[in-house]
Amino acid sequence: MTVLHQISVDLGDRSYPIVIGSELLSGGFDLSPFIAGANCLVVTNETVGPLYEAALLDSLCGRQVETLALPDGEQFKTLDTMVSILDRLTASGFSRDTTLIALGGGVVGDITGFAAACYMRGVDFIQVPTTLLAQVDSSVGGKTGVNHAAGKNLVGAFHQPRMVMIDTNTLSTLPERQMKAGLAEVIKYGAIADLEFLAWLEDNMQALLEKDAGALAHAIRRSCELKAEVVSDDEREAGRRAILNFGHTFGHAIERCQGYGDWLHGEAVAAGMVMAAELSGLPSGDVDRLRTLIETAGLPVASPDIGEEAMRDAMGMDKKVRSGQLRFVLLESLGHAVVSSDYDDAVLSRVLSSAA
Amino acid sequence: MTVLHQISVDLGDRSYPIVIGSELLSGGFDLSPFIAGANCLVVTNETVGPLYEAALLDSLCGRQVETLALPDGEQFKTLDTMVSILDRLTASGFSRDTTLIALGGGVVGDITGFAAACYMRGVDFIQVPTTLLAQVDSSVGGKTGVNHAAGKNLVGAFHQPRMVMIDTNTLSTLPERQMKAGLAEVIKYGAIADLEFLAWLEDNMQALLEKDAGALAHAIRRSCELKAEVVSDDEREAGRRAILNFGHTFGHAIERCQGYGDWLHGEAVAAGMVMAAELSGLPSGDVDRLRTLIETAGLPVASPDIGEEAMRDAMGMDKKVRSGQLRFVLLESLGHAVVSSDYDDAVLSRVLSSAA
Repeated sequence: MTVLHQISVDLGDRSYPIVIGSELLSGGFDLSPFIAGANCLVVTNETVGPLYEAALLDSLCGRQVETLALPDGEQFKTLDTMVSILDRLTASGFSRDTTLIALGGGVVGDITGFAAACYMRGVDFIQVPTTLLAQVDSSVGGKTGVNHAAGKNLVGAFHQPRMVMIDTNTLSTLPERQMKAGLAEVIKYGAIADLEFLAWLEDNMQALLEKDAGALAHAIRRSCELKAEVVSDDEREAGRRAILNFGHTFGHAIERCQGYGDWLHGEAVAAGMVMAAELSGLPSGDVDRLRTLIETAGLPVASPDIGEEAMRDAMGMDKKVRSGQLRFVLLESLGHAVVSSDYDDAVLSRVLSSAA
Repeated sequence: MTVLHQISVDLGDRSYPIVIGSELLSGGFDLSPFIAGANCLVVTNETVGPLYEAALLDSLCGRQVETLALPDGEQFKTLDTMVSILDRLTASGFSRDTTLIALGGGVVGDITGFAAACYMRGVDFIQVPTTLLAQVDSSVGGKTGVNHAAGKNLVGAFHQPRMVMIDTNTLSTLPERQMKAGLAEVIKYGAIADLEFLAWLEDNMQALLEKDAGALAHAIRRSCELKAEVVSDDEREAGRRAILNFGHTFGHAIERCQGYGDWLHGEAVAAGMVMAAELSGLPSGDVDRLRTLIETAGLPVASPDIGEEAMRDAMGMDKKVRSGQLRFVLLESLGHAVVSSDYDDAVLSRVLSSAA
């Protein structure tokens, strides 16, 4: 067991650490300091549970621990699934000092976090993300929630975890396509907030794709640091935090038009970032640079053929819409994003009309 | 229209005012300063809507306002009802700057507040409580939620309103039994935190029962002040806020055993307060004093015949249980409550066994 990095997310009395290392699960990393009561519910899914649940349970011995395996997939990220967690908690008579532990990808983390936010108006939870996407994005920052027929993540809560434990070994069992989807969010951090990190990614993308342990740990740490810094500034997304949605307005629209389940979230965001870079009016060399990096990561750089009107309709429901005015995360330059409604609608039409 | 009192609930950047007055609805009290966007959803119920909705809508002209009438009754305080609000919000395409306005009693306020907490991870809401219980208790303090088959308010969130508007005229249409149930919570504030107010209630109970406007406004103001003070100290009920649950451990157990819907919440709390006073080991003169005041308000002073074992079972699911240890809100003296697990189990047995 090796702890390589520890980062702090600074949010006053809701501050928490992100621990990044290898063999943390198999080595029995001690979660005790982050567990207040005697009851824990480990929530995982049918795919991840068989791989890592036993190791996690070993490290929790001496407590009343139950496990719940959710069905695997974004289509189960629903209120009904969230309620199945609440039903288990009540059936087990778990009290207000219960800790929920989310073991899995972003779907498991988001649903479990939302259940923790709602059970008895809020109990503790710990994130143990097992996908790259969850490790660099969804496990950090306290956004929890589920999808609604009308849109992604329309129902949820801000609820910060007590800690996040990232074991890079879990990536050894991650399918290649999901690995690449996670890299989309890693690239995003470089694009919106750190040109130097973007350059590092250009130099190290091959190592990341080959799951080089040192490269992965660095990419995860830097991504978490950048996200933690933005979240600490603006926990509830009143302003700057929205830059984390770079590529997401287009990405969510793509996912919505596809009915969630064709492209992965990271794939939709990858194409969305190229579209947003084009809308930003960056010098074409900079757009090309971002496109090339995304391509090198094996990710799509253009939308599937959906059509402008359908895309506009899908974006009408986006959470970043304020009283009818479309707002986008745009790049002032590579490495510097802003939230703005200052864009050329003709360029938007062109971006929405062009497809792969 | 007369604004009689304005109180502030001090919670940093989530602080908000409680405005108490008469004819605020019919006089068109201006809610504009508390509404950020162009969209409002007024959530009410089938009983209250026809009485006060039109006046409220008049004062909101110029905005895109929709209304939703929930079925009336505690049995509809469910996740399904909450979801019906979310469905309406998404169907109307309401965005993150939407304001929900809860017009009704505690059930409407709790469900609407929870929907506001969850929609897009939190939108604004305003409380316009129309029952005495909601005016002095549930509309103040940010507790929102719904019931679960396993217990009352087991699912919810802390979500503070932007403001609370209390129009004492709405009490003119409140059924007498509900009026008395609200007085139970008013008496509670005296019992737990203000002996002088308890004495005032002894002198003015008849005026309150006759809906004397001045007496009502004073009782509501003092109740809200006392609640606001406790909530400001301890928003998320880590400690002192729990004293607001005086009488509620027993009260919730009574409601649970009855399946919610026989006694009103305030009636169960009234009996629960006498039981808690007995468990506190107060001098018998003090218990008698509280019992007499509750009796004068026309409220029950003893549990229905449920039986010790059923009551203990029902209390096992109470949110105040920490890892198996029962904790009660007890009175050190009249006007001073503490949360404690220091009680005589034989006295508890006697209290649970005695019934009306």
